[in-house]
Order: sequence, then structure tokens, then C-alpha cells
Amino acid sequence: MTVADPEISKDPLIVFMPSGKNGRFAIGTPLLDCARQLGVDIDSVCGGRGICGRCQIVVAEGQYAKQGIISKKGNVEPLTEPERRFDARTGLADERRLSCHARLLGDLVIDVPPESQIHRQVVRKRAELRAIDIDPVVRLHYVEVAEADMGVADGDYQRLKKALKDQWGLSIEAITDDALKALQANLRKDKWRVTIAVYGGRKIIRLWPEFVDHLYGFAVDVGSTTIAAHLCDLASGEVIATDGIMNPQIRFGEDLMSRVSYAMMNEGGAEELTISIRAGIDQLFDTALAEAGFPRDRIAAITFVGNPVMHHLLLGFDPEQLGFAPFALVTNEALERTAQALSLESLDAGTQCYFLPCIAGHVGADTAAMVLSEAPQLNDEITLLVDVGTNAEIVLGNKTRLLAASSPTGPAFEGAQISSGQRAAPGAIERVRIDPDTYEPRFKVIGSDLWSDEEGFTDATKEIGVTGICGSGIIEAIAELFMSGLLSRDGVIDGSKQDQCRRLIPFGRTFSYLLHEGIPEISIIQNDIRAIQLAKAALYAGARLLMDEMNVDQPDRIVLAGAFGSHIDTKYAIILGLIPDCPLDQVSSAGNAAGTGARIALLNAGSRGEIESLVRKIEKIETAIEPRFQEHFIAAMAFPHKTAPYPHLGKVVNLPKNLEPVGPQNRRRRTKRSKT
Amino acid sequence: MTVADPEISKDPLIVFMPSGKNGRFAIGTPLLDCARQLGVDIDSVCGGRGICGRCQIVVAEGQYAKQGIISKKGNVEPLTEPERRFDARTGLADERRLSCHARLLGDLVIDVPPESQIHRQVVRKRAELRAIDIDPVVRLHYVEVAEADMGVADGDYQRLKKALKDQWGLSIEAITDDALKALQANLRKDKWRVTIAVYGGRKIIRLWPEFVDHLYGFAVDVGSTTIAAHLCDLASGEVIATDGIMNPQIRFGEDLMSRVSYAMMNEGGAEELTISIRAGIDQLFDTALAEAGFPRDRIAAITFVGNPVMHHLLLGFDPEQLGFAPFALVTNEALERTAQALSLESLDAGTQCYFLPCIAGHVGADTAAMVLSEAPQLNDEITLLVDVGTNAEIVLGNKTRLLAASSPTGPAFEGAQISSGQRAAPGAIERVRIDPDTYEPRFKVIGSDLWSDEEGFTDATKEIGVTGICGSGIIEAIAELFMSGLLSRDGVIDGSKQDQCRRLIPFGRTFSYLLHEGIPEISIIQNDIRAIQLAKAALYAGARLLMDEMNVDQPDRIVLAGAFGSHIDTKYAIILGLIPDCPLDQVSSAGNAAGTGARIALLNAGSRGEIESLVRKIEKIETAIEPRFQEHFIAAMAFPHKTAPYPHLGKVVNLPKNLEPVGPQNRRRRTKRSKT
Repeated sequence: MTVADPEISKDPLIVFMPSGKNGRFAIGTPLLDCARQLGVDIDSVCGGRGICGRCQIVVAEGQYAKQGIISKKGNVEPLTEPERRFDARTGLADERRLSCHARLLGDLVIDVPPESQIHRQVVRKRAELRAIDIDPVVRLHYVEVAEADMGVADGDYQRLKKALKDQWGLSIEAITDDALKALQANLRKDKWRVTIAVYGGRKIIRLWPEFVDHLYGFAVDVGSTTIAAHLCDLASGEVIATDGIMNPQIRFGEDLMSRVSYAMMNEGGAEELTISIRAGIDQLFDTALAEAGFPRDRIAAITFVGNPVMHHLLLGFDPEQLGFAPFALVTNEALERTAQALSLESLDAGTQCYFLPCIAGHVGADTAAMVLSEAPQLNDEITLLVDVGTNAEIVLGNKTRLLAASSPTGPAFEGAQISSGQRAAPGAIERVRIDPDTYEPRFKVIGSDLWSDEEGFTDATKEIGVTGICGSGIIEAIAELFMSGLLSRDGVIDGSKQDQCRRLIPFGRTFSYLLHEGIPEISIIQNDIRAIQLAKAALYAGARLLMDEMNVDQPDRIVLAGAFGSHIDTKYAIILGLIPDCPLDQVSSAGNAAGTGARIALLNAGSRGEIESLVRKIEKIETAIEPRFQEHFIAAMAFPHKTAPYPHLGKVVNLPKNLEPVGPQNRRRRTKRSKT
Repeated sequence: MTVADPEISKDPLIVFMPSGKNGRFAIGTPLLDCARQLGVDIDSVCGGRGICGRCQIVVAEGQYAKQGIISKKGNVEPLTEPERRFDARTGLADERRLSCHARLLGDLVIDVPPESQIHRQVVRKRAELRAIDIDPVVRLHYVEVAEADMGVADGDYQRLKKALKDQWGLSIEAITDDALKALQANLRKDKWRVTIAVYGGRKIIRLWPEFVDHLYGFAVDVGSTTIAAHLCDLASGEVIATDGIMNPQIRFGEDLMSRVSYAMMNEGGAEELTISIRAGIDQLFDTALAEAGFPRDRIAAITFVGNPVMHHLLLGFDPEQLGFAPFALVTNEALERTAQALSLESLDAGTQCYFLPCIAGHVGADTAAMVLSEAPQLNDEITLLVDVGTNAEIVLGNKTRLLAASSPTGPAFEGAQISSGQRAAPGAIERVRIDPDTYEPRFKVIGSDLWSDEEGFTDATKEIGVTGICGSGIIEAIAELFMSGLLSRDGVIDGSKQDQCRRLIPFGRTFSYLLHEGIPEISIIQNDIRAIQLAKAALYAGARLLMDEMNVDQPDRIVLAGAFGSHIDTKYAIILGLIPDCPLDQVSSAGNAAGTGARIALLNAGSRGEIESLVRKIEKIETAIEPRFQEHFIAAMAFPHKTAPYPHLGKVVNLPKNLEPVGPQNRRRRTKRSKT
């Protein structure tokens, strides 16, 4: 290869697009070799044997002024025999060539299609997110090994390493016990040709006596309630399937703390919980593999994320210390385990399992995955990330600084501790509107698109019923009660309006609001409002504490992650003061950000080091020992936060008449108005 | 610390003997700290807490001209309270002090006794051998860890690593799964103080919530016939016990090749053999541990040596490829496995097991261990190492070059394929003399010190009987037949002497020699002599091939290793031409050199890298494909070797009358004689 300079060399010039990398090579050089020498990343599993078809390129035609050359199909060797065979076997699209066999005859401009690039990118759905750069931890290499020879004392493993060095430039340092055990027989099955799976460029983890060109992995989000696994193609990044099951540990307790208690109170309890979660994951993998229809030895890597308790239990660590202060983690480093060490029998023993690091005793690997997915560290703007579950994990920061905390919201947002509360499942009320004049409600339930006052609602919900109210429903109900004036800023149902509103029913010394008259009867009682007040105050106070620490009044962007974040109407979240004020168009839901983070760690090897070093830098704020947390918490009990300004909210909703705007910004606005 | 110069500093000078390392330190510095800063290796497990007593020293008294100081007991702080407590608990010998608590008050000369030195040496029995430098792969460190704290998000593992860094200067990189699982509970059992076992200075493999100051290991020689395990104290190097059992694989076949055949011919056969050998080793460890009386978690490291087939089977590798040319090893690198990976249930799961590397398909880790023990690579003189079993492993070389080969001697030297042959066990004839005038024999059997013609022999052997003839016995019998003139140089029993010798009995078309008339009758038949001829020719030809390659006529030193090497009278080995000529005082028996090599690899961490790199450098000679091997083999069938000179032999034994000295050196000698 030489630098392109026609005066120095008469060798043909080759230009690869889109990178523009170029150089001169002798006539007859295979195009893939040119690419390799120029550092153009063209994929290949078979190592130039015309088998895998990953190295396809297209010859561009035309005059290229910039390079001063004319590229034409005639400047590349006509279709070769191996390409014909590949076409017959697998199909080679028009214009496509296998760069491993097509040879250079004259000046060329080559288009490398995205699927032939090693570092191809997987586009993510939300526009604001960076794409995932595919660079999997496990790669396949087809290799021909020198036969054993009496004259050479090298073992088979040494000869395999030499072949991988010579043919792929790999410096192998290790091999799994299973691969080593399978080595001799496999080498001899098809004339010393094998496909090798290499982990991290250094460790052989599996081998096949045939040509294999696809490996897969699972990205698993282990939640307290549900476990979700994304089956991904490691080379294309494509999600083949997503499966989920209920966490089988639920029989030991609905919430995390009751499971930790179970582990603490029962001899062998932690082990039972570990066996249970592993069995659940095993079952999930089994099902996914059966559906996908490929052998389990094609699964080469797994990534796990979860809260600290799930993380510890899956690893077989006793979660006892996570049950009380100071909430000491066993470790806050990322961990690698084999499937065998985790007793995951659905996978080959040596399958590599990676656990993202926990951030602190209350802030788990799921939060680390959320950070990996949302990447607040890449921006100047300050992002507030919130994942609401039994605790709210909160991350605030930008490229300069990242802070994390956990706030004890309790399970009210998930519908627990609410008189008519239930999980978000068919039949649960998820949307609520209350007419500010008549005080009459209408609502929607999960499983039907109709509002309760629309025609056909009764028929539509005949099967599913109206069974309770879920987290987003209770939020909307309370916000609507507040905006209609039935609820004071302190969260007290205003019994004095009993005459105007037939739905206000005395309930002990307080009042309740009857939302639905069917069976069961669904009401919002005073205690429900208290539960939500406590939860939202904890959430807000946690965010506020980080904002104080960061010395900012409001974040530039708010991302709500997790199931709750997906279902909630962000407008209502601001009305009730769950989250700080922020331009509404800068408040978004990230969906399953933890699962996305797990997927990134599966598909991009570099992201592992990235999140590991980021986690070490994240500053952990312990809400329980910060006196200001209590102050913020008490101040945040009212609707919305008593002292915080909500200037952006006023622009999109009609604030209730009884809501007196307060806070410095509001005051400034009022001053302005008074000037006009 | 400063360099000793009285003009620069008035701080007291301290000199440590025997190293002579010295420096000035402030008054009040603990002597152990002075030693550490000067690089004097004083042992300590407890890290200066006055618990382990490993750091004992003695204050020397007197005037030291060289250093210009007067050392006296008054220059060290009087006996401290921790030393008094240690004395009351464990006993502190007169004059001894704990250097961790005794503080410097004035100029001092300190004697560090051998048992307080980290790199103490274990003297080996044979004078010519270097001592084993104790530097075990696993060390103990007692450490106090910072308590978990709400304000610090570090996990317990991170705090442990920090404590090991601060208190012991260790940079921990890894921890076993089991140790990590046990970490939290153990840290909290005794106020965050634990003893940590660290492997290779980097990996935590075990921990205890109490002070532990002794760890042990097994060095195991896995032979085809017997398995021997040496239980060693990792800190002192002392062999606590040596236990042995028969290899339980014997039921699958006496010799190696029949076991390899079993593995090849039977579905799951290799696995059966693996289970069998592992069960045998487990039983051996169980017994040794029960006798030693300490908990199994004190066993921290194991080293294994064995021939390639035993090595592969123990590791769970199918030995099929070792059964035929080209005898491909799975790997010729050293391997590490956990006890769990080897299914050794007598040990804690994470116990580190190290396999010395195999050299080639016929030259195993036992030969590597023999090289480690005998260290031919350290000398200018050329050493010939021979380990005789079913194959003879042969190593030849010096510091410049090392060669290795295996020669197919067959099992004749072990008493197999011999008509009255048996293993070396009580009742076996092991020594034979034949009167050159009367041709009458006398012999000794294993289990009795009397010769067969001595009074009381019949009584002494009443219980054990005279049951057969073992390897050394057959060698001596044949050599004596040869020297008495009953056997030709070509190995034919001379039937023409039947009249003079009543013990020559016709046997088919040949003759046999009746050695013992009892029951059973023990004779040396012509076929026995052929079997020994084939074996000895193979052994000699292998050695000769290496000598050719090395371009030498004779080695400077011969070491016979293994059981056969221990029993054989080296004089007879030379008479029969088993080994090349060599001054008789330079022929020695190394006993269980493989076991010693295993022990070195257990007790000295550096020796592992040493043998691993040495094995890569050893040149492997494949006897089967060397045409000269056949030539040497045929030429070596006669007694002794037809063309080789044996000048040294003539000096110590009366050569038989029919032995015509030949070869260039003999010729030279004859020429000399003819001149006188």
C-alpha cells in the first residue's frame, strides 16, 4: 500500500466509501485485503474463504473528480467461482461482490454497505438518543489449523492459537475448560477447520467443527416484579425477541424488603431466593430459545441488570446487609460469571454473564444501565433521570458531574398501599378526568380505548371489568381532584363541598371521593392521598437534594424511566409536584431504559468499561443522612411543591383557581404582568 | 531511612544479619518497620499485631568494628506488653523479641533467625541439590477493615481491598466467587478483622473471621500405578505427611495404553477413567486430612504432575489422541483449575490446583517436574535424566540446551512380560548373584535382609515367600548370567554349558536358567532375556539419539529417577548397557524426582514460571520418526552396547572373560597397554 500519488506509483487507486480511505495496491490484490490494510472495517467471519458473505461491497461507477479517477465495474475481476457458489447457495444481490475474492484490476471507488461494516450502528427509536455502535464482546472466527505432526511437540491448543494469530491477528491468552475439552475431537471432524468464538479478543469460549456465522445474547432486566430478556443478534444488534415472566420470588414477598426479611428470618432463605430467581431466568431462556429455534450453544453472552437486592440474590450473595443501614453492598464493581457458576442450566456452561455494577446500596445496576442508555454524561445540559419503583432512583448531572440518590417513595406509585389500588393490568383505571363544574368523573381502564362516559364502554369492559386503580390512575385522580378544587393544597378532601358534589362521602373523620359505583366500588380515600403525598414528597425531595448539591434550580431535561414513567402523563406529574418544574417538551419517558442499558452492554464491548468507570465517578448522595432531605420532604407534601416555581406548567394547563403561584420566578412573572 | 553516615544523621544505626542490610531510623521505630524499609524479608501474618509470632528476632551483643557501633540489649525497648502476652500464650524463647513491637532506642545489630525469614530455604536430602526457596503461591494476611458507613458507597470488597493496600501494600485484582459470598458475614463476626488468603499477591481466594497462621498444600504425583501426595506446610516447606494409594484406574487396564484403549473402545470410557482417578485422589486427600487433623479450608493449593495420559484424564481431557501417532497433546501449557472444576470434593471449591506442563505427547508433566527437581539447566556439565516406567522419559542437556525424548521400553523393567515377573513387592527377588565358577545363584527378596544362602533365610521368608522376580532382580540376574559366561553377548543362553551347570534346563528350542526351585519355581527363560534386551536397547537408543543431537559421547552425570531408578544397582545398569558409560560416582538415583518437582512448584511461586518457560525451550526429539533411533536400537541389543565404550566400568567390576572391550576409547587404552 502506498499513499495515493500518481507520480510515485502506477498501481491502481482504490477509494472506500463512506470513509473515503484510499490507497494504491498492486493489480490482483483482493479488495478485502486492500480494505484491511487501509483500516476500513469490513466484516468477515470466514476469513476470506467466500463462505460467510459478510464482506459484500458494491463497485461504484463514474468519474470521481476529487480523486481524479474513473471507477467502473470492468476495473474489478469478473465474478469468481467462489462468488458464483455463494450466489447459488445463499444468493448474492445484483451489483454485490464478495470483497474477499474480487480482485483489483484498475482504479475503483467501492461502497461499503452498512451491513458489511463491523462497527455498524443500530438506530434506537427515540430520536434524541445516540445509536448503539455494534462491537460485541464475542466474535466468530473461522480458521484452518495446522494438523498435528510428529515432528512438532505443540499441543492442539498451541496450534489453534498460532492459526488465530496468523489468520486473524488475534493474541489468545485463555480458553475455557469446556472449549479445551472439546478441542481435539472438533478439530478432527472437518479437516482441522473450525469456527471459534472469541471473548474480548483474548479468550476462546467455544468452538464448532462447522462454519457458524451468528451468535446471540440475552440482555436481562431483573426486576422485583418482572424479569425481561431481550434476545439479540450479536453481530447485527437486532432484537430477535423479547420475553418476560413474573419474578417467581413474589411468593416470598411482594416488595424487596419483605424478601430481604425472608432471607434474614429463615435458615437458608437467601439460598431459596437465589434458586428461585435463577430458576425463573432459566425458564425464560428456555422459552426464548425454543421459540427462536436455534441451538443453545449459539448463545454466547448475557448481560444482567437489576436493583441491588436482585443483583445480589442472582449472584448468590446474601442480601441481608441491604436490609438495614448502612446498606453495604458486597461489591460495587462489575462482575463476570459463567452460566455454570450461576447454575443457569438452559445455557452452555461457559456462557459469559456480565453484571453491570451497582452504584450504591440503594442504587443498583439497573440505574447504572439507565445511565448507560440515557448518557447524561455526554451533554452540557443537566439531565434529571428518575426511575420510580418501590424506591425512586434519581440521577442528576451532565458531562461535568453526576450525582445519584435513592428516595424511599414506597410502593404507592405502583398501586400498592392504595385502598382500591392494583398493578397496571387489564381492568385498572389508568386515566381520570373530573369536570370542574359538575365534579363528575370519567375514566379509562387498561384494555379499552373508550372513556367511561362514551357509548359502548360497558360492553367493552364486560370481560375485563373495572377492577381497581393503578399508579397512573391514582396520580390523575388526585391531580384532577386538586384542579377541580375538591382537594386543598395540603391534600385534604374538602368536605364542605359535599352539597355541590354527591361523590364526596364521609369516611370516618374524613371524606372519600367515589370514582366508580360498580363492583367493586372504587373510591379515593383520604389515606390514599396521604400515601401519594408521602411518595411524591420523597421523590421530589430526592431530586431537590441533588439539585441543591449541583447548585441548580431546575434541570434542563427530565427523563422518566421504567413502567411508571411510561404510563404516567408527565403533565400530571408536574401538577402534583412529583418532579421539579421543567419545560414540558423536555420531559420524556425512556421506557425500559435499564433494559436498553443491558442491551448496550451486550452489543458494545467498550460500553462496559465506560459504565464501570462512570459508576466510580458518580457521587452518591445518601438521602437518609442528609438533614436537608427532611426539610425538602416536609415542604414537598403540598400540591404542588409549596416553594418551588412552576412557570412552565402555567403555559399548558389551566391551573386551579385555588392555586396561588409562588416562588421567585413566579413572583418575577407577576411583577412583569403588573407592569403591563 | 537514610544511608548509614554518622556525619549526616545522629539517628541510631540498625544492621540486620545475615543480609547485612542497614540504615538509620528515628528512635522509637519498631524493628519490623526498619526491616521492611530496608527490604529485609521478615515474615508476618498478623501485620504487626503481636499475634502470629512470625517476626521474631534476636538482638546481637558486642562491638561491630565494620559498622563502628556497639549493639546491646539496652538499645532496644524493654519487653512490651504484647510480647509478654504472646509469651504467656505461645511462649517466646529467651533472647527472642517480636520485631513488630520492640522499638529502636540505639545502635543495633539484629540476627534474623532462619524461621523468621520469608524466603527461608528447605534443605533437601541429597547433598548435590539446591535447597527449595520457600515462596508460596498463597500467603496469609490478617487485616482490619473499615466498617461500612452510610456516607461511603464503597462495597465491602472495595473496603477490604483498600485495607489490604494500606496495611500490606497489596494490589488485589480478583476474588473467588466463594470468598466474595462469604465476605460480608465474616467481616462482621469479629469487629471487621479477618485473615485473608491471597494467591499470587493479586487474588483473594479465602478468608476467615479469626486469626489463621498456617496454610497447607498437597504436591501430588499421579502415576499409572500409584498416586502419591505430599502434604506440605506452605510457610515452612515442611512435609507433614506423605500418603499413597494404588491408582484405582488399574481395574481398567494395568498399563497406560490399555486404559487409553478402554477410553477409545467404550462410550463414556474416558469419563469413567476421569471419575475413577479423581475419586482416588479425593480419597487420598480425605485420608491425609483426617490424619493431619486440621480443617480442609487450610488446604490452599495443590500441584499435580503425571504422565500425559494421567494428566489428560485428571483434567477431563479425552486421552484418545495420545494413543496413536502423532500423539497430539490437548495443550503443552501449564494449567490452573479450581478443586470444583476437578470435582475434588475433599477440598474447598476454590482451592487452586496447578498442573505442571507436559513437554510432548510422550513426555509428561512428571518429566517437567523431574527437570524442575534436578535442574540440569543450571549446570555446565551435561546431565542425562532418565525416568524408567512403561516408557523411559529421557532428558539430556545443560545450561545451553535441553533435549527430551521418550523411548518405548515397554513394561519389562517393571517385571511385566517376564515369565516369573512381578511388581516390586514383598517376596519378589530383587538382588541376584551367580557364582562364576559353580554357576550357583543366591538372591535376596524384598522384605528380608538375608541372602538366600544365609542361615535363617527360609524362616525369614516363611511369611512372605519367594513369589517372583521384580525389575531390579531380572536386571541383576541377566547381568550375572552374562558375567558368569552363561549368556552370550547377543543374549543367548549358552546351552553348551549344560554339563557344568545343572540349572540350565532345555526350554523348547532354547534354554532357561532355574533361579529358585521352590513353589513357584522361578526361572529366567530366553524370552525374558529378549524382553529385557528390547527394553534396554530402547532406553539406550533414546539416550544415544539425544547424545548424537547434542554431539557428545557421554554425559557428565546420570540421574535415574522413579521407583526403578531407586531400586536398580547402577553398576548392573551399565553392565547391561541400559545407560551410556559414565563415571560410576556420577550415576545417582533421584528417588521420586517428579514428586519433588511437584513440591517445588507448590512451595516456590517463581518455579512455576521457570518450568513453564523451560518447557517451551526444551527441544523435543521424536524417537519414532528418527531413522537413527532404529540403528541405535539394533546396535544396542547386545550386552553391553556393541560399539559404545565402557571405560569406566572396567575400573570397578571384573568384566566377564567373554567381553571383548571395543570402541575408540577402549582401543586407545589397548594401544596404551601395548606400549607398556
